[in-house]
Amino acid sequence: MPEVWISFLSDYGLDDEFVGVCHGVIARTCPTARVIDLTHGIPRHDVRAGAISLRNAIAFLPPGIHLAVVDPTVGAGGRDARRSIALRAGEDGQLFVGPDNGLLMAAAESVGGVAEAVDLGRSPFRLEPVSATFHGRDIFAPAAAALAGGTALAEVGEPIEPESLAALELPRAEVRDGALVAHVLGVDRFGNVILDAGHAQIADARLRLGDALEVQVGARRHPARYAVTFADVARGGLILYEDAQRMAALAVNRGSAADLLRVAVDDELHVRAG
Amino acid sequence: MPEVWISFLSDYGLDDEFVGVCHGVIARTCPTARVIDLTHGIPRHDVRAGAISLRNAIAFLPPGIHLAVVDPTVGAGGRDARRSIALRAGEDGQLFVGPDNGLLMAAAESVGGVAEAVDLGRSPFRLEPVSATFHGRDIFAPAAAALAGGTALAEVGEPIEPESLAALELPRAEVRDGALVAHVLGVDRFGNVILDAGHAQIADARLRLGDALEVQVGARRHPARYAVTFADVARGGLILYEDAQRMAALAVNRGSAADLLRVAVDDELHVRAG
Amino acid sequence: MPEVWISFLSDYGLDDEFVGVCHGVIARTCPTARVIDLTHGIPRHDVRAGAISLRNAIAFLPPGIHLAVVDPTVGAGGRDARRSIALRAGEDGQLFVGPDNGLLMAAAESVGGVAEAVDLGRSPFRLEPVSATFHGRDIFAPAAAALAGGTALAEVGEPIEPESLAALELPRAEVRDGALVAHVLGVDRFGNVILDAGHAQIADARLRLGDALEVQVGARRHPARYAVTFADVARGGLILYEDAQRMAALAVNRGSAADLLRVAVDDELHVRAG
Repeated sequence: MPEVWISFLSDYGLDDEFVGVCHGVIARTCPTARVIDLTHGIPRHDVRAGAISLRNAIAFLPPGIHLAVVDPTVGAGGRDARRSIALRAGEDGQLFVGPDNGLLMAAAESVGGVAEAVDLGRSPFRLEPVSATFHGRDIFAPAAAALAGGTALAEVGEPIEPESLAALELPRAEVRDGALVAHVLGVDRFGNVILDAGHAQIADARLRLGDALEVQVGARRHPARYAVTFADVARGGLILYEDAQRMAALAVNRGSAADLLRVAVDDELHVRAG
Repeated sequence: MPEVWISFLSDYGLDDEFVGVCHGVIARTCPTARVIDLTHGIPRHDVRAGAISLRNAIAFLPPGIHLAVVDPTVGAGGRDARRSIALRAGEDGQLFVGPDNGLLMAAAESVGGVAEAVDLGRSPFRLEPVSATFHGRDIFAPAAAALAGGTALAEVGEPIEPESLAALELPRAEVRDGALVAHVLGVDRFGNVILDAGHAQIADARLRLGDALEVQVGARRHPARYAVTFADVARGGLILYEDAQRMAALAVNRGSAADLLRVAVDDELHVRAG
Repeated sequence: MPEVWISFLSDYGLDDEFVGVCHGVIARTCPTARVIDLTHGIPRHDVRAGAISLRNAIAFLPPGIHLAVVDPTVGAGGRDARRSIALRAGEDGQLFVGPDNGLLMAAAESVGGVAEAVDLGRSPFRLEPVSATFHGRDIFAPAAAALAGGTALAEVGEPIEPESLAALELPRAEVRDGALVAHVLGVDRFGNVILDAGHAQIADARLRLGDALEVQVGARRHPARYAVTFADVARGGLILYEDAQRMAALAVNRGSAADLLRVAVDDELHVRAG
């Protein structure tokens, strides 16, 4: 019997029993499913960080069900309420389960776009009474487990239009006046600054490996080099490189680029040949 | 072959190899067992927090073996020594393994009470030489794995009287002079304050959904509302709600109730219609 | 079909998706492999701490593949580049995968020494394009999964001489002028100070259980006792004990030995009968 995989990402953290309880719910519903904890360390309520992590990981995960919960408005009710959804995306039929707040969309688009969607609000698999705040346990994990057990998407919720799904606004890098104008997508634990420019945009800006560069943040300008490895600059030197997701990133050899540049998420940078 | 499940809760944290080593011991003894890490983030030596987490989770975990280790007096020896125990509880025959300090009791009672208990101190499955400090590895994990492999409870230790087991003292909410007098069981990572009052006690205090309330801590009084969702109060507003375990809890819309109320575990609060 | 086990240790932490992505890569390559997360909390770039954790754990893990990644010079390139390696060690044929910086050596030696080694730099299982910084995903996890799937060591990389592998320098305790001269290997989360002296060296220094001792750090001298349990000293008292790995360690009853002694990794201590 082939393995059925569920990947699981959240902002629950590991300090309390929330993640373990979701594993328990999955095990009770579909004992043969195998769960990969992608991460539960997404900063609290940071939908965009969760969306980027899931998109970065998706090509390296076994095809299956992807359960993701970063959910600032759970329990909000009223006009702030968001739907609970499950999606089928791409030709491989990958399945996604989570809140309708854009969290799932970057990954779903990267595998081919949403082909089918359902609203889980009245899912027959939900655990009653559904709590106001722990939809991971009461709605999302049961739906993911039902899908893992072979239940069709149409059986776990009510059909909704893919066009009606909440989008995720991400900044977009561009080439302007010969400079690569990019934005900070995130900062990793090593202080490396991840930008929203990919391989093609680096090429469009005519940046070439080995080039001396200038990185401008506001009025501040920093010399840098477009390099493959830290060995290409002295200790403390700034490099632009393609990271493991082939995204442009900035790092300081044995230091923190975020500290050097004093940047935070969404800040704009200009990179040009220097 | 049906899956055999072990849930595993501790205060070991994930910074060192303790949890992984316990997984290794289980895998060597019973390779087919599947382990759910409930949480290893229980505050160090906080037996009560561990007991509450386990009790909250138990109904959502697959029936099986529940291994829990929060053990302030391990290595104490002498009159401070506690026993190592395994229990069978309830009609489903759920099994619990851990120290005899009350950690297992709230969960065991919630599934029907202890029916049989053994002392693991001379368990034939323990790893020799038993260390003074790492009973998770040397006593508890081997016993849990032996039970997972089908060994009878009576074979993993020596019988003891269920009545002799250490109890866990928990405060008890009550209704007094028309007010709900409750205590802080814990504070979650969002700053929500969990109380020791359940659904029935909220009803006994004649609190009704939508009511304006007053929450009193010492001499300080805070206006609040009994609500289902944050949307029922303005940003910064205090609500009383039933949490995902149907326990009374206090939260601040987009803020921290623990910070607002300046309360810590065991503090007493009075809640009344305002 | 017998279970095939991969243990996995790193300094990736759990805040982002790195660990989950490595699990995904393993699942895609060898879905039947089962992975034990030994720990991902090794302090960043601390090869020695990782080596000690792996060596401490190895006897308690199921035989199989041991994947470990603590890799300060990844992405360094040039003369700072280290090789990516896989090893077979001991009579049980345990397999190790990781960087050639000494991380794997203490564990490999503890199971019998390296019998065969390969360079993974051009492994046919590596994920192309290999990133400059995420060799856990692109080189190590794929190699570990290939080995788990039954591929021979000689098929995952090119043979290299075991003698050419980078060693790990660890301090060595000795008995000098009747005193046990030991060094701090690490400090655990409880503030216990782990020394590099084992059972035999404690005996060589003629320390006997129950003895009053003197622990000297620089010019400071602290009274202590060689004990099995904390109960043998008053609250705040210092004890020398054999820890769960049978290594000498220092602890303070209900306190922190590291704080009391003001020691850090590599500091030298002299312990003698007092």
